[in-house]
Amino acid sequence: MSRYDPYFEPAAGNGLLDRRFFLKAGAASSALLMTASVSAQERPPWMKLPGAALSESGAPSTFEAHVKRINVNPRIGTTGSGSSRTPLEHLEGIITPSRLHFERHHSGIPEIDPDQHRLVIHGLVDRPLSFNVESLARYSTVSRIQFLECSGNSGGMIAPTPMQGSASQIHGLISASEWGGVPLRALLEEAGVKPAAKWIIADGADAAVMARSVPLDKILDDAIVALYQNGERLRPSNGYPMRLFLPGWEGNMSVKWLRSIRVTATPAMTKDETSKYSDLNDDGIATLFSFPMGVKSVITSPSPGLALGAPGIYQISGIAWSGSGKIRRVEISADGGKSWADAALDRHVLSKCLTRFRSAWRWDGGPAILKSRATDEDGNVQPTRDVVLKNRASNSFYHYNGIQAWKIDRQGEASNVYA
Amino acid sequence: MSRYDPYFEPAAGNGLLDRRFFLKAGAASSALLMTASVSAQERPPWMKLPGAALSESGAPSTFEAHVKRINVNPRIGTTGSGSSRTPLEHLEGIITPSRLHFERHHSGIPEIDPDQHRLVIHGLVDRPLSFNVESLARYSTVSRIQFLECSGNSGGMIAPTPMQGSASQIHGLISASEWGGVPLRALLEEAGVKPAAKWIIADGADAAVMARSVPLDKILDDAIVALYQNGERLRPSNGYPMRLFLPGWEGNMSVKWLRSIRVTATPAMTKDETSKYSDLNDDGIATLFSFPMGVKSVITSPSPGLALGAPGIYQISGIAWSGSGKIRRVEISADGGKSWADAALDRHVLSKCLTRFRSAWRWDGGPAILKSRATDEDGNVQPTRDVVLKNRASNSFYHYNGIQAWKIDRQGEASNVYA
Repeated sequence: MSRYDPYFEPAAGNGLLDRRFFLKAGAASSALLMTASVSAQERPPWMKLPGAALSESGAPSTFEAHVKRINVNPRIGTTGSGSSRTPLEHLEGIITPSRLHFERHHSGIPEIDPDQHRLVIHGLVDRPLSFNVESLARYSTVSRIQFLECSGNSGGMIAPTPMQGSASQIHGLISASEWGGVPLRALLEEAGVKPAAKWIIADGADAAVMARSVPLDKILDDAIVALYQNGERLRPSNGYPMRLFLPGWEGNMSVKWLRSIRVTATPAMTKDETSKYSDLNDDGIATLFSFPMGVKSVITSPSPGLALGAPGIYQISGIAWSGSGKIRRVEISADGGKSWADAALDRHVLSKCLTRFRSAWRWDGGPAILKSRATDEDGNVQPTRDVVLKNRASNSFYHYNGIQAWKIDRQGEASNVYA
Repeated sequence: MSRYDPYFEPAAGNGLLDRRFFLKAGAASSALLMTASVSAQERPPWMKLPGAALSESGAPSTFEAHVKRINVNPRIGTTGSGSSRTPLEHLEGIITPSRLHFERHHSGIPEIDPDQHRLVIHGLVDRPLSFNVESLARYSTVSRIQFLECSGNSGGMIAPTPMQGSASQIHGLISASEWGGVPLRALLEEAGVKPAAKWIIADGADAAVMARSVPLDKILDDAIVALYQNGERLRPSNGYPMRLFLPGWEGNMSVKWLRSIRVTATPAMTKDETSKYSDLNDDGIATLFSFPMGVKSVITSPSPGLALGAPGIYQISGIAWSGSGKIRRVEISADGGKSWADAALDRHVLSKCLTRFRSAWRWDGGPAILKSRATDEDGNVQPTRDVVLKNRASNSFYHYNGIQAWKIDRQGEASNVYA
């Protein structure tokens, strides 16, 4: 490999290589150098007979059946309440396939007949309005690729000892999609918002009537009534036939199965924003209405369950995001944070979206602690766990965005550590 | 609606409104003005009981069962040969769900065990190399959202009289995805390309051994060995476990189930680039190796099968793309091309990708002919049908990128016309 020597210069401690490494050189150690004659390569059985026919819907390979949402057991004593998680460590890029988008329901998934469904806009408006799917589709649609994160994501990281599990089990309540829908601003302008209005209350058509208060400024800024996800209509587990979508804000405010927008002067203080989704401090006072999700990142490969093989050069890959805008920078450490190197960001760096980052790492077979640290375009830097938990009550688990440390042992296995 | 008067100024003939129309005003006519009390709105049945539970894979709504790939019957007398098409008129935005990505197979879909599959790089190289999925995954991956179009797409438009069918039936061999994989340049650098090399021959692991010649310059520019589509592993109908992906070039060169890359000095003149995928001229000479797909657009709504309702304001929506780079401009006409207005482009305008365009149109209930005309960043302008077919043989149907005209009749029905 001597011809690539300049690119083997370390960028930080414990084997981190320059982010341009992969631009110039392959990871030579991973190719199987051929000795057999190419012409002697035998044809596999699937080349000897015609394959399967065309179909109306292309399914994943049966060899990928392990790639599925995890933790699908509903909460004990309820029906349909709970969450399932995106299998982050099996995905690449920034789009989450709709079938694998995380779920969080409060009373299961209603089976809604779109012809019977209505969205009503009322309250402090000049003209209450009612829309069905067909009438909404006549408004100008916008499409944006953006993330959605449950504010309870990564909440297990508040435990006094590190929970063990995959990247998905710890951080899998984050997904990204192309969301298409109608700017709510256009609908509110048509209804005519009265001067006293400062908030809206959004209700879902599930049996729990999930309801959240949203400041009117956010609604007028970039809220949409989403009808489409990744090109097709929303799937039922993500709000079919329509949901609110609030870019960058905590997931459950993007109310699914959206049924009612009531324009008000004050927030409603619903059960879903007081008993839940608020942040209890160690002085017994709760912080309400902490809406935007913080700047955050996690390395998805390597991560627990994806063991390294022989020592050699590996790709470190992960996702970073911020509710404030674009990701500007991701740094990686292989020595537990003593030294850092810039990761390469993939081509598509979009606002309030997942950004894929990558780095080259020469693992020498010894122990290592991998970390990533994201910075967004506003200059917000992902904090350490200690900083996140400072002044929090011991059972306060929402809005956790601390730096994740994966320990790599001599067998190449990764585990969750506080380091 | 008098408060929005300035935005009702026409931008072109027969009702086309300024593209900023939707930014300021809703399409007031489509809302159902409420007369009933909101509180009297009865709860639908799905709010009265808990809904469905969490699941490992979120399926589409049963109410969307009509959204599927079309024309799935294989070619008569073959097994698994033919194509199925993306239901363009039911989609929005720029991403095509993987299950709805178009298919074109020459001998069906092989069921490949990824652990048994190998990609061999050989020919004019210093070191022949063999890769499996696992070894490829150690190379640096890139992800890009880009289109793939079959060069036979829209070929029905060469018929002397306009074929009748939906936008999908005529133009549905176009889709866009986030493609993730390893730059082939890195693999070739590792193999060591000899000075005489000018082409590569890519073979698929299907029973037809689909094979195409690709200039080495393209391979070194932006070709990848794709492992991922929209975040997850490729689906079998799109090349699982790996395919070549050549951004902007005719689809079948992005060889699925990629098995072999042979580096050569000359093209192979395979059956798949001589008997097919070449353009016969009216002097009996065929143009070979016309690789990049031309600048093109099609209005997907309204389009045949999506009838308009009452006269009023509608959203015109469609997709534009170019194999040369980004879309710079899309113009719309509602009077058959006598006058044109600029459409609004959606936020994400990406290189060699679908770009969504939209326009506001006040349909007066009379006949209209809708057209769209795309221009790319190199200044290429989508041609008329006459220009596309000039000097072509009468049975030459590849690489058709002419302007599509949809006639809207007084009932609001759209049909394909040559106008």
